[in-house]
Amino acid sequence: MKPKEDCIFCKIVKGEMPCYKIYEDKDVLSFLDINPYCIGHVLVIPKKHSRWLWDLNEAEYTRLVERTHFLANKLRDAFKTEWVEEVVAGIGTEHTHIHLQPRKFDDGLGELPTKPIIPKPTSEEMKKIQEKIVKVIK
Amino acid sequence: MKPKEDCIFCKIVKGEMPCYKIYEDKDVLSFLDINPYCIGHVLVIPKKHSRWLWDLNEAEYTRLVERTHFLANKLRDAFKTEWVEEVVAGIGTEHTHIHLQPRKFDDGLGELPTKPIIPKPTSEEMKKIQEKIVKVIK
Repeated sequence: MKPKEDCIFCKIVKGEMPCYKIYEDKDVLSFLDINPYCIGHVLVIPKKHSRWLWDLNEAEYTRLVERTHFLANKLRDAFKTEWVEEVVAGIGTEHTHIHLQPRKFDDGLGELPTKPIIPKPTSEEMKKIQEKIVKVIK
Repeated sequence: MKPKEDCIFCKIVKGEMPCYKIYEDKDVLSFLDINPYCIGHVLVIPKKHSRWLWDLNEAEYTRLVERTHFLANKLRDAFKTEWVEEVVAGIGTEHTHIHLQPRKFDDGLGELPTKPIIPKPTSEEMKKIQEKIVKVIK
């Protein structure tokens, strides 16, 4: 599918909207969720617009999930947690995205957090989280 | 990792415990979640015991997620829904498993269901759901 004019993630891909980027290659982009459900909550998206993860063809899907595997393990390293949740929901932004949420057994967020942490991290805190992840990826 | 003596999913793989199986090959098994969060909720597991999805090596991971892609699209066909949620959580059964939940916008379950549907489907209903999926896979 072509970029959608009104798609926020397509705008981020094109650089028309900012993001706290943690990874980018020719097919895949990853950045911090601006309403994080836990510290280190990132989104992994295909650059090409697609509504559903399951609509991607085999090559696109394989590339996206291989990078998701890579990034989940980098989040484990960055946050010293063995546990990273993955969620692919459906409502919300209509551009395929995979949530990765590094978790700890004692973080008090339960099995599957369903709402943003309060207080929301400040932009300074977001930058620090971004730097922490980028440092491990490099 | 070797099969774990006390692992329910390893017992299901070995045939020591029953399941409503919908798919099996030499590496991957898929069956209905016995506490479904929606109708058609299935689990996809690697037969080999592994604690975390991210611990799988590249070949094991690729095989599992390729079959997940295949099965998610079969669930779309079986339940006439374009939307299938995918969740990889961490607490619960300590054997890597991917939840696939075929969803509809008007099913009233919200963005991400976090508890079993009530009433729980009877064993007769579970068999019918199983048959419905298996028919589409074949």
